[in-house]
Amino acid sequence: MIIVLRPNATEQQINHIIEKVKKLGLKPMISKGAERTIIGVIGPEDVINAQPLEVYPGVEKVMPILKPFKLVSRDFKREDTIIDLGNGVRIGGEKVVIMAGPCSVENRELLIDIAKKVKKAGAVILRGGAFKPRTSPYSFQGLGEEGLRLLAEAKKETGLLVVTELMDIRDTALVAKYADIIQIGARNMQNFNLLKEVGQTKKPVLLKRGMSCTIKEFLMSAEYIMSEGNFNVILCERGIRTFEDFTRFTLDIGAIPAIKSQSHLPVIVDPSHAMGKWGLVPAVSKAGIAAGADGLIIEVHPNPEEALSDGAQSLYPEKFAELMIELRRVAEAIGREI
Amino acid sequence: MIIVLRPNATEQQINHIIEKVKKLGLKPMISKGAERTIIGVIGPEDVINAQPLEVYPGVEKVMPILKPFKLVSRDFKREDTIIDLGNGVRIGGEKVVIMAGPCSVENRELLIDIAKKVKKAGAVILRGGAFKPRTSPYSFQGLGEEGLRLLAEAKKETGLLVVTELMDIRDTALVAKYADIIQIGARNMQNFNLLKEVGQTKKPVLLKRGMSCTIKEFLMSAEYIMSEGNFNVILCERGIRTFEDFTRFTLDIGAIPAIKSQSHLPVIVDPSHAMGKWGLVPAVSKAGIAAGADGLIIEVHPNPEEALSDGAQSLYPEKFAELMIELRRVAEAIGREI
Amino acid sequence: MIIVLRPNATEQQINHIIEKVKKLGLKPMISKGAERTIIGVIGPEDVINAQPLEVYPGVEKVMPILKPFKLVSRDFKREDTIIDLGNGVRIGGEKVVIMAGPCSVENRELLIDIAKKVKKAGAVILRGGAFKPRTSPYSFQGLGEEGLRLLAEAKKETGLLVVTELMDIRDTALVAKYADIIQIGARNMQNFNLLKEVGQTKKPVLLKRGMSCTIKEFLMSAEYIMSEGNFNVILCERGIRTFEDFTRFTLDIGAIPAIKSQSHLPVIVDPSHAMGKWGLVPAVSKAGIAAGADGLIIEVHPNPEEALSDGAQSLYPEKFAELMIELRRVAEAIGREI
Amino acid sequence: MIIVLRPNATEQQINHIIEKVKKLGLKPMISKGAERTIIGVIGPEDVINAQPLEVYPGVEKVMPILKPFKLVSRDFKREDTIIDLGNGVRIGGEKVVIMAGPCSVENRELLIDIAKKVKKAGAVILRGGAFKPRTSPYSFQGLGEEGLRLLAEAKKETGLLVVTELMDIRDTALVAKYADIIQIGARNMQNFNLLKEVGQTKKPVLLKRGMSCTIKEFLMSAEYIMSEGNFNVILCERGIRTFEDFTRFTLDIGAIPAIKSQSHLPVIVDPSHAMGKWGLVPAVSKAGIAAGADGLIIEVHPNPEEALSDGAQSLYPEKFAELMIELRRVAEAIGREI
Repeated sequence: MIIVLRPNATEQQINHIIEKVKKLGLKPMISKGAERTIIGVIGPEDVINAQPLEVYPGVEKVMPILKPFKLVSRDFKREDTIIDLGNGVRIGGEKVVIMAGPCSVENRELLIDIAKKVKKAGAVILRGGAFKPRTSPYSFQGLGEEGLRLLAEAKKETGLLVVTELMDIRDTALVAKYADIIQIGARNMQNFNLLKEVGQTKKPVLLKRGMSCTIKEFLMSAEYIMSEGNFNVILCERGIRTFEDFTRFTLDIGAIPAIKSQSHLPVIVDPSHAMGKWGLVPAVSKAGIAAGADGLIIEVHPNPEEALSDGAQSLYPEKFAELMIELRRVAEAIGREI
Repeated sequence: MIIVLRPNATEQQINHIIEKVKKLGLKPMISKGAERTIIGVIGPEDVINAQPLEVYPGVEKVMPILKPFKLVSRDFKREDTIIDLGNGVRIGGEKVVIMAGPCSVENRELLIDIAKKVKKAGAVILRGGAFKPRTSPYSFQGLGEEGLRLLAEAKKETGLLVVTELMDIRDTALVAKYADIIQIGARNMQNFNLLKEVGQTKKPVLLKRGMSCTIKEFLMSAEYIMSEGNFNVILCERGIRTFEDFTRFTLDIGAIPAIKSQSHLPVIVDPSHAMGKWGLVPAVSKAGIAAGADGLIIEVHPNPEEALSDGAQSLYPEKFAELMIELRRVAEAIGREI
Repeated sequence: MIIVLRPNATEQQINHIIEKVKKLGLKPMISKGAERTIIGVIGPEDVINAQPLEVYPGVEKVMPILKPFKLVSRDFKREDTIIDLGNGVRIGGEKVVIMAGPCSVENRELLIDIAKKVKKAGAVILRGGAFKPRTSPYSFQGLGEEGLRLLAEAKKETGLLVVTELMDIRDTALVAKYADIIQIGARNMQNFNLLKEVGQTKKPVLLKRGMSCTIKEFLMSAEYIMSEGNFNVILCERGIRTFEDFTRFTLDIGAIPAIKSQSHLPVIVDPSHAMGKWGLVPAVSKAGIAAGADGLIIEVHPNPEEALSDGAQSLYPEKFAELMIELRRVAEAIGREI
Repeated sequence: MIIVLRPNATEQQINHIIEKVKKLGLKPMISKGAERTIIGVIGPEDVINAQPLEVYPGVEKVMPILKPFKLVSRDFKREDTIIDLGNGVRIGGEKVVIMAGPCSVENRELLIDIAKKVKKAGAVILRGGAFKPRTSPYSFQGLGEEGLRLLAEAKKETGLLVVTELMDIRDTALVAKYADIIQIGARNMQNFNLLKEVGQTKKPVLLKRGMSCTIKEFLMSAEYIMSEGNFNVILCERGIRTFEDFTRFTLDIGAIPAIKSQSHLPVIVDPSHAMGKWGLVPAVSKAGIAAGADGLIIEVHPNPEEALSDGAQSLYPEKFAELMIELRRVAEAIGREI
């Protein structure tokens, strides 16, 4: 922590800060420049961060030096985390993992039809929402537990693993029972109680980045889950909110190498929610893999005209199958495979 | 809903859309221009919105015309909503309501000391967090139920009403028991299950705007609460996230008249969280009232150096008392009072 | 400047940096913590900033401590700058200065009519564009020199001073001949050659904030003008670009006290461009004054239906006159006058 | 254009609008719904856009339907534009074009050294700034004409084409004399007079996207250049400004397919300015090509520690050569070559 003092800070103010810092068991280092004095504070960053040093008289600003996260950090664990999801599916390793399926689970027939098609094209995980966070209370809210049961059937029939969203903390055990990966949606990325709860389940968690959360906050939310003992966290970049409204969100492609430089956790990309338009999904899917993502989660629907949610961003199964061919080539070009 | 077709849309595609629209019980109006055809769709907007018309062949884009919210809308209710909080406190009327107190409830003595001071200065509602949403799992998370009990004591001792945050849906009854106003924090603005739950309590709800939510989304979240039967919703502008990092958030002052033009609900401003620096709080507090806010919620702490959270943005009680004098003058200048 | 080293930085890397810093005539201060080493660099910040210290092996990040601006800084000049514009008009002092007029100069009759009306209501400066920056090459681009001549006539007839925009560096002398204040538009805030040029004219300059420029960058652009010897710079907050699209831009009300805490220059607010909707202009005008702005620049047009640009955000002269009464009251409430 | 009326719009107001629309030679189409009336206006969009229809009494909002750009539009020209730059270099075709070089031209020896190295690795265009837009007036501003002469020498020696930035409209002829491609920087994307001027040169123009400009505004700026008769416009996505500050800007990867869906112009990516950190440049370079970019512009410097600008984001020549091998593989994976 660096404390920058005002040009006119008095000796008395400086001493007051130094005493305070010492009382906390920390070690102050004073540097007096021509223009102003700076105090470096050495010691555990969490003790230091807990102090509102900005409010001390004479202080101009306070700048943290170390990162606030620990368990998610690459300083804590050098090598990439590989999460074994069972069924021979591992995420974070050499293979790029493709998750695909409809936005919402709508009915048995449709779900199994999609599951079979995405599996045939090369997907290994089935996505599908049973509980849907919708901006309007009047929109379709998902089938609930019935949706979870249908996902289980589709899993049984195809061997695909299942990823599905948990919205309500009271449904944790229920969702954990059916899901191979519990998804925490962007709107719940800072629902800290929900994070703690999934941290206690030990189930793999797919954590979506909040639409206006920084990479640092994203990693801090992963830290919440890990601090409860669940180290199986998969991060998902799904677009951030910016002024650009041609696309639904702005996919932060730089976040992939950025996160990988900071953390050992696997990172995947959701091109469907980021773009909001199916026509743009193939290009950014390829870009995601080229940038180093460990997987993709893509919406597929055989009849987007009739989809109960997000039809506009869903690929037809045939388009998805064509895309998979291209994705394989891109993965190979960077020394990976699908 | 307006459907704009591509310049090269075929007759067949146009007929397909028209049939679809009619099948939904809606009325299409076709306008053929020199460059392209446009289809207007008349009928209940929620039926229309549920259709992913963008994916129909030949469609370039779809533009909604009507607002997606109903109960919160000024079209639904013309006159301003005034919420009677008891103890003679009404929000949304001629009087501007001031809420003040510490960021977190820390201990009995401190809380009651602050409560007395802010009351003396003119505040009518005591704010204070018992459950704190913190970015880091290692930061102080609040006193929990003990904090709620201390708020109740402070209420008893001073007559101030109490506003406090509900974070976990499982604590709804608990918080409702102690709070006069249940606060839903910015990070939970789109925690839809929590919104439904407080919608069922009938307690007044202070709904904070999500840090990257549009005014429309903000009103849709209020709609969630109202659609469960709870019409006592107070909206709180607390700053949005932008590229500017000198302030913690960017207070969207234009949102006050904007929301009032769209909705009948009362709107208050949180200058403390928006600025993140106490030195900027007085200026934007005055601005908030001048712009038409129905109230302010301000952090006050007698010893920010020792505050367990958000010390940097808290006003000393004396500064708060001075500010109250200025706020009264600004309120009078625009024909209101405090 | 603080150089934070990676946890695994070697002695050799540390020594390399220290030598480099010394060779630049700067003084390094080394602090070795348990986790990592930090090097403070004392000396003139501009010498330090010129070094890409981030690229040195072993460096994790580099954090500047001092502000990059000098002449605009309150550290450089403590008391508020008051700019004497002649005709008894001074900006930055006790009086709040109101500038008003049409978006573009359209014709003689209209301009003089508006000028008389805004003067009567209390404005002291006439705004009006002769050169208009328009997003589309097919939109009305302004009357050019003819527009400047009309502004001069309106000045002669009413005694109002004139503020008008300079877009093309080749028109500097021309605009300086007619204008009392040269306006640099938001889109040119970082047109550095234009800034240098107006820096050499000594004419008062109204510098609008770029729509996505930080307060720091805004002040650096003022520094460009001042570094050429022109100290008569008026800063104008006119809204920044964010995700919110209900208003045209998001007026950054916190920027007013923020800038005043950093700089001695006067700050005004442009509510018309910020909102883009005349109905929201009165509320944010009052907010601007309450927050401490030294002036406002407001669009007024007697017949917005026929305006050649920005009709939607222009007030009718009668509305403007009503607003002026309210603005006076708000100014008085905070101890100023109009 | 669609005019949405307020629920309480009167017959008189509706008739006033209809008359107005007819007087402009446009054709109104009226749709009366249960809740409100909507008027569609058919006719040339530029005539319609010039009218501030929002201000008419009874109007709630106005929604444009057609795109405001013409010459840049894919509706205007279906097939991709391929710009022949001479020396066998064509941009927009099957080959992906790599531009590389230092941020600023610093001296003869260094420039020619870099030029040879990037050429050997496969670049075909040399980038280098002679005029540098710098946030601070105290930073290195470029060598000016001397820099241009050095670029010409490097071109002569290596056969590489030259792209360099034009900042001051008065230097247009000078820069056009030396450059094969004139670069318009992000900060000048809406310097409309400069756009018109380069529109008259007929030289290929590399137009960088403004840091907070929408795709629509970006295309409108290209329209400015094309409307003067210069159709050789190359668009460059270089990152937009968002709240995320880990990277210097947020590279809008979705903009590549988005622009290609709207326009026939070639699009390239600048990963160096977008990221601001050389370590992140390789990943997003590969992503850019995978997403369909027609080229990349990359900063390369043999001694970033000594670079006079942007050292932190420059690749060492050896790193660049390694990256080129990977880029070739990615290009091949999507059916292109470098």
